[in-house]
Amino acid sequence: MYVVKSPLSDENMWTVSEALQGALVDLVDLALVAKQIHWNVVGQRFRSVHLQLDEVVSLARAHSDTVAERAAALGVSPDGRAATVAVGSGIGVTPEGWVDDTTAVGTLVEALGAVITRMRERVAATDEPDPVSQDILITITADLEKQHWMFQAENG
Amino acid sequence: MYVVKSPLSDENMWTVSEALQGALVDLVDLALVAKQIHWNVVGQRFRSVHLQLDEVVSLARAHSDTVAERAAALGVSPDGRAATVAVGSGIGVTPEGWVDDTTAVGTLVEALGAVITRMRERVAATDEPDPVSQDILITITADLEKQHWMFQAENG
Amino acid sequence: MYVVKSPLSDENMWTVSEALQGALVDLVDLALVAKQIHWNVVGQRFRSVHLQLDEVVSLARAHSDTVAERAAALGVSPDGRAATVAVGSGIGVTPEGWVDDTTAVGTLVEALGAVITRMRERVAATDEPDPVSQDILITITADLEKQHWMFQAENG
Amino acid sequence: MYVVKSPLSDENMWTVSEALQGALVDLVDLALVAKQIHWNVVGQRFRSVHLQLDEVVSLARAHSDTVAERAAALGVSPDGRAATVAVGSGIGVTPEGWVDDTTAVGTLVEALGAVITRMRERVAATDEPDPVSQDILITITADLEKQHWMFQAENG
Amino acid sequence: MYVVKSPLSDENMWTVSEALQGALVDLVDLALVAKQIHWNVVGQRFRSVHLQLDEVVSLARAHSDTVAERAAALGVSPDGRAATVAVGSGIGVTPEGWVDDTTAVGTLVEALGAVITRMRERVAATDEPDPVSQDILITITADLEKQHWMFQAENG
Amino acid sequence: MYVVKSPLSDENMWTVSEALQGALVDLVDLALVAKQIHWNVVGQRFRSVHLQLDEVVSLARAHSDTVAERAAALGVSPDGRAATVAVGSGIGVTPEGWVDDTTAVGTLVEALGAVITRMRERVAATDEPDPVSQDILITITADLEKQHWMFQAENG
Amino acid sequence: MYVVKSPLSDENMWTVSEALQGALVDLVDLALVAKQIHWNVVGQRFRSVHLQLDEVVSLARAHSDTVAERAAALGVSPDGRAATVAVGSGIGVTPEGWVDDTTAVGTLVEALGAVITRMRERVAATDEPDPVSQDILITITADLEKQHWMFQAENG
Amino acid sequence: MYVVKSPLSDENMWTVSEALQGALVDLVDLALVAKQIHWNVVGQRFRSVHLQLDEVVSLARAHSDTVAERAAALGVSPDGRAATVAVGSGIGVTPEGWVDDTTAVGTLVEALGAVITRMRERVAATDEPDPVSQDILITITADLEKQHWMFQAENG
Amino acid sequence: MYVVKSPLSDENMWTVSEALQGALVDLVDLALVAKQIHWNVVGQRFRSVHLQLDEVVSLARAHSDTVAERAAALGVSPDGRAATVAVGSGIGVTPEGWVDDTTAVGTLVEALGAVITRMRERVAATDEPDPVSQDILITITADLEKQHWMFQAENG
Amino acid sequence: MYVVKSPLSDENMWTVSEALQGALVDLVDLALVAKQIHWNVVGQRFRSVHLQLDEVVSLARAHSDTVAERAAALGVSPDGRAATVAVGSGIGVTPEGWVDDTTAVGTLVEALGAVITRMRERVAATDEPDPVSQDILITITADLEKQHWMFQAENG
Amino acid sequence: MYVVKSPLSDENMWTVSEALQGALVDLVDLALVAKQIHWNVVGQRFRSVHLQLDEVVSLARAHSDTVAERAAALGVSPDGRAATVAVGSGIGVTPEGWVDDTTAVGTLVEALGAVITRMRERVAATDEPDPVSQDILITITADLEKQHWMFQAENG
Amino acid sequence: MYVVKSPLSDENMWTVSEALQGALVDLVDLALVAKQIHWNVVGQRFRSVHLQLDEVVSLARAHSDTVAERAAALGVSPDGRAATVAVGSGIGVTPEGWVDDTTAVGTLVEALGAVITRMRERVAATDEPDPVSQDILITITADLEKQHWMFQAENG
Repeated sequence: MYVVKSPLSDENMWTVSEALQGALVDLVDLALVAKQIHWNVVGQRFRSVHLQLDEVVSLARAHSDTVAERAAALGVSPDGRAATVAVGSGIGVTPEGWVDDTTAVGTLVEALGAVITRMRERVAATDEPDPVSQDILITITADLEKQHWMFQAENG
Repeated sequence: MYVVKSPLSDENMWTVSEALQGALVDLVDLALVAKQIHWNVVGQRFRSVHLQLDEVVSLARAHSDTVAERAAALGVSPDGRAATVAVGSGIGVTPEGWVDDTTAVGTLVEALGAVITRMRERVAATDEPDPVSQDILITITADLEKQHWMFQAENG
Repeated sequence: MYVVKSPLSDENMWTVSEALQGALVDLVDLALVAKQIHWNVVGQRFRSVHLQLDEVVSLARAHSDTVAERAAALGVSPDGRAATVAVGSGIGVTPEGWVDDTTAVGTLVEALGAVITRMRERVAATDEPDPVSQDILITITADLEKQHWMFQAENG
Repeated sequence: MYVVKSPLSDENMWTVSEALQGALVDLVDLALVAKQIHWNVVGQRFRSVHLQLDEVVSLARAHSDTVAERAAALGVSPDGRAATVAVGSGIGVTPEGWVDDTTAVGTLVEALGAVITRMRERVAATDEPDPVSQDILITITADLEKQHWMFQAENG
Repeated sequence: MYVVKSPLSDENMWTVSEALQGALVDLVDLALVAKQIHWNVVGQRFRSVHLQLDEVVSLARAHSDTVAERAAALGVSPDGRAATVAVGSGIGVTPEGWVDDTTAVGTLVEALGAVITRMRERVAATDEPDPVSQDILITITADLEKQHWMFQAENG
Repeated sequence: MYVVKSPLSDENMWTVSEALQGALVDLVDLALVAKQIHWNVVGQRFRSVHLQLDEVVSLARAHSDTVAERAAALGVSPDGRAATVAVGSGIGVTPEGWVDDTTAVGTLVEALGAVITRMRERVAATDEPDPVSQDILITITADLEKQHWMFQAENG
Repeated sequence: MYVVKSPLSDENMWTVSEALQGALVDLVDLALVAKQIHWNVVGQRFRSVHLQLDEVVSLARAHSDTVAERAAALGVSPDGRAATVAVGSGIGVTPEGWVDDTTAVGTLVEALGAVITRMRERVAATDEPDPVSQDILITITADLEKQHWMFQAENG
Repeated sequence: MYVVKSPLSDENMWTVSEALQGALVDLVDLALVAKQIHWNVVGQRFRSVHLQLDEVVSLARAHSDTVAERAAALGVSPDGRAATVAVGSGIGVTPEGWVDDTTAVGTLVEALGAVITRMRERVAATDEPDPVSQDILITITADLEKQHWMFQAENG
Repeated sequence: MYVVKSPLSDENMWTVSEALQGALVDLVDLALVAKQIHWNVVGQRFRSVHLQLDEVVSLARAHSDTVAERAAALGVSPDGRAATVAVGSGIGVTPEGWVDDTTAVGTLVEALGAVITRMRERVAATDEPDPVSQDILITITADLEKQHWMFQAENG
Repeated sequence: MYVVKSPLSDENMWTVSEALQGALVDLVDLALVAKQIHWNVVGQRFRSVHLQLDEVVSLARAHSDTVAERAAALGVSPDGRAATVAVGSGIGVTPEGWVDDTTAVGTLVEALGAVITRMRERVAATDEPDPVSQDILITITADLEKQHWMFQAENG
Repeated sequence: MYVVKSPLSDENMWTVSEALQGALVDLVDLALVAKQIHWNVVGQRFRSVHLQLDEVVSLARAHSDTVAERAAALGVSPDGRAATVAVGSGIGVTPEGWVDDTTAVGTLVEALGAVITRMRERVAATDEPDPVSQDILITITADLEKQHWMFQAENG
Repeated sequence: MYVVKSPLSDENMWTVSEALQGALVDLVDLALVAKQIHWNVVGQRFRSVHLQLDEVVSLARAHSDTVAERAAALGVSPDGRAATVAVGSGIGVTPEGWVDDTTAVGTLVEALGAVITRMRERVAATDEPDPVSQDILITITADLEKQHWMFQAENG
């Protein structure tokens, strides 16, 4: 049976792996949600919103990869399958069909806000058990909060 | 209410939109499955399989974008949300946890085979109603069949 | 006298050359119309529309080149001179002077719609006589319909 | 009504806008003429002439954009529509159909010569009213005269 | 024994594999012939012809790879060995030793013409059995016919 | 004591150095003002304005470097320190705190207008004493007037 | 009135915003000071110092942008206007006119030293209230301290 | 005598410099060990292991440079000479001569494991004395642990 | 009749041209053999071998071009036609159909070994007659011997 | 006999061609002088001077090409042969053999100074006859004066 | 007095330095001659010859730099000044004024032939004294002989 | 047991492998020494020396890789471990701690001189046994001697 030699104690391991798995699910869903609205947005700000959403997609995809590989590096199998994401994501239900641009921006503000709240809890939770994982989560939070500002300013 | 002026008749529209929406769900799931195994594969061929899976991810992501925007161009709202994908994908259940390299390759052979079968049906179904959409689906099928060969050869 | 050895029969040749020459004139005019509005648009969406129009210009220029060289490859002299374009284009009269952004977007929806209708007829007409030329026209139509959607979504 | 705050007096404005609009029409037509011959040239120097003509096209397109945006910057709506170009260009009638390479080169020598003569008049006319616009026209003239030399040398 | 799970029936398989194998042999030979003349051409158009021939080489190499991998993707072993090519190519005997530029261009016109005729038969033959393979062969034919035109124009 | 061997007479030197030093202060301030609004703009056009302002910043930074190094090349020490800029800039007071997008655009129209007026005086003043410096100032003016137009059109 | 939904408590907000605003002012001034000396340095090490100073400029500009956008992301309007910088910077008075290379290097050692001291206080102050902002300030401090070493070594 | 003005107290300085010097020696040796095996590995996984080892070399070289320059920035002379590395490295003896691929992968698992243990001690030790140096060591540890996972998975 | 002014005596010419023509045939065949196996390899090392073979192809193609143009530069017409290669190559018969990865690697070891032996004879033969040609052959030999090692190590 | 159709009168032609031919000779020599010192400089500033001289070489080569092609564009045969340059250059005798860095910098200050004086006369002389050529000479002068400053600052 | 510690005996030094200095003068002149004809060629092959000559210029400039720095590396001051080149070059007198394309090609055949003869003597002369310098001269000879062929083929 | 099929006799093998192993050790140490001084140099030429030393590092690393892989290609296991380098290098003891720039340059002149002497002996020793290895050593020697000159010129 394959076992990675982990640099963490069992207890710390449990805390950190929960934080990383949670972050993975949130980030995979964020990418899917942003793409969904990228395709369905309509209205006068169509092009601006369409383009900005692809920046969120790129960012969420890159960070989900980092988080999953960090889990693997600690010996924890990451789970980013569709069913797992559909059930465990911290983001609320995304509206079906076309969305006007103001709603589109609002949806992203909501989604990013929900993920940020959970990310900040993960930053706090991993501080003691593993500063290396925490550092990765801090970088992700900074990026998400920057996007959060930009979407709020867009509807400001 | 926002309505795109569609160049297709209502009946053709229905056929084509079903094909495109089905392709979208399959391709989004293919990307998620390939990433899942990219992170969880172990064994002597780890590096080869790890790298090749990222090629499948890139390919599936690019094609899912084309298919979704094609649907939008015809006036049909595409749906690529996690719950929709979890329910509607043509790919079977992906194993949880670590997978050895031979199983990893086999899983991809299965997944690609399932998607290809459905894609060929969509190519046939869209021939009359909309050759433009068909052309897009043909290109996707060619790419998937090439990957299918490579993973079969890898376990050959 | 210079004569290309054509792979088509005389009758097919006539059909295909008519389709290609028509496409050439439409695409050259589309580039000129898009540039005209690129320079004359004003309003709150100035920058978005200004940029998106340059994408139409690039696309129309690239496709006009492909279409003209395809005609030459079949032995038909292409004609893209200003006077020929001014008379034969399928696009209606473009307004003179400054245009506000909503009108600008609407003008493109009109222009693209007109060209798409004619392109689809050319796709149908060339199916039997020359699938190679048809494939080129299909690719162009897909691109034009994607732009058509985006401009409609912009005013949606 | 939209009005740009112009840095020029009314009289100077009139002179400068006439020069810029004239330059725009000449440059748009030069690009169309060069493309026309790029597609229709035949003969032993086919490839050389084919390639060099595309350099003229790039140059004419880039300069026409600069000139049109300069007009807009001064508050004058530029007009580069096909009908305007067909009527107002300073370039003579371009031959229809295939052209042998020597004629092709000669046609460009003629076309460039005609545009250069008019450009030099515009350089002189804008010296007092607006040295900024004059500087743009000088740069264009230098480029056109370099091409003029190269085509003359080609047939020399 | 290694067997690819093919998406085609046995009968269609036989037709398609014959078309792909034939295309492979023709394209490998075309690259060898074009290189041979690239090295042996002399005369006043040396540089133009020398350069243009390398474009044919690149094109033929890229397409031969696509065709061979398409065969493999369908479960058919491709054969591009020197002896197979020497015997099966559709291109006539290439002259030995130095060739003047007019003969060089003529040789390519011949070679391209021969390959195009066979390619068009393959496009027709694969229409029913496998539209995916046909789409690949159509793209190749378009490229070859464009080169055919350019070499004919060069001696026109 | 370090003294550059100047190619200008003392009198001409004084005129030219005053023009260059004034341009330097205006351009450094323009970059600071554009960045300030880049960070503080809110509203529906947030993304468009945010991005366009960074183009002004790049442009102002590049030109301030050219102007300062031109002064140094003539033997005049350039002064671009914060206190010098705060006192000597030709741009009025920039509002504190968040600004809505319409005000943001208006602020730039004002700032650019103020700088352009002074630049045109410098172009006139340096005509006789040093055509080399004048040529640099003309290029800067053209760029600023183009931006001026674009921001006016944005609120047009 | 535009208000960003901040993830911090009011008290933490006050501490963090003070740190970020202070860092912004110091970094904007550092860029101006480094440019000033970049233009005015003379002496045998002119080229080395001239080039190295542009690295400091790039670094200070990039970090000032990060810090300002971080403030905005937390809902605090950043202030980087010339007058604010002239009054609030932690860097002492920069000498006017030409500076010999040894003095130039010494000035940078002073300026960097002053900013580093204040940055370290900000790193300490933000540890509890916001680890995300602290992480950004730590990265900036590392870069500044590396430059500090290089300028000290240069005069060592 | 050359002395850098250090931002740390003497006691903290001693702790931090010991951590940085230790990290430097480990990383220089890691690069040498990875290169040694890069050249001497044989077996069926030759190419995969050969390539992956060069990623470790690049990573170790880049981080050793960062660590050494960080020491210099704090005023501590770094020592990366061959004799110092041969004596002080935390990595055990590397086998002489050819190594089969399984042993090669195992050697790296050992080497990385040894360095990671020491790195985590350094992360803990520098937390109080200098968070800037700690941040650098955390980033290095994350990279090493990712490599550690990949080599374990390769033999998994 | 076209004759190049050769810098070599007739006798030396004969020796050198034989060496270059032999090298040309071997290298063209090596490229064809490597591509053949690139398409037909199956087995667990599929991806590694598939990729490495394309490096051999690139290398053999580039060197065959250098060798052929060197012959032309000495006034000797190079011959790289399929029939010439099929008859004159120093590489033994390549197996038909699919090959497992171990056999694939072994085939390359054989092919490279055969070419290297002949190349070393050519290096010796050209030492006196033409050190310029010898230098080219030495470089080719070094590259082939490096590949020879890597394929041997792969099966080691 | 080959004659370009010149846009200038005979008298203006004579003045302009003298200016361009003089500039050509000066710039070709400047490139040779800068290379000579690039190779022969020794001393503590070796590297800085060695690199900066190559910037002068690039600049002088690019401008000499522009000036020669401008002459050709006006129908005047440019002369940049070694003997013409050796006799007609405005730069004094360059010292033979190794030169210490201070002398090297001084030599460039002299050489640039001599060329600048003559360039300013040419700018004045071409003002009336041909503003297009004058514009080219102004740009060259600005570049030379910037280099002049930098070399003076280097010895300042 | 500056003296490089040479790795060669005095006698060998004398032989090698003569070869390198001779090569330097020939290569600098070759670049000047090729540029001269690049500017003055006229005729139907204008563009081809114009472009190919610039390849000779690039090649001659790069090799002259290598040769001069090799001399410096051996402690011999290289001399590439205009007067030295005008007197010592092995290339005959280049015709003044415009040259038709056939003469232009012929002039290069002559010039390259003359330099090649001398280069081969230098290759022979440096064989014993310094194989390192010989290797550099061999590479240069190979490049010149390739150009020699191409220009002969052009007139062949 | 793994054995490479060597193209050399046993006796020649012994000579060549000794030369390559010696070169490997010298080059690995040269890279370590150059890095050591890169970090520890201080003084007015800090930046120049700091940068130039990194060029030596890149060069030594690249060549050590070539030499080690050449040994492996001949079937000889290369040894580049820290202990082997510490004992066998031809470079004398590098000073500990900070070094002023003049000493730093002098240290490199010494180190390069020592390695060059040994390299020239290896070039002579491999002439008969293996011209391919000799060619590699000649190229390395040329690069080292060029650096040797530049560091001598730096202190000249």
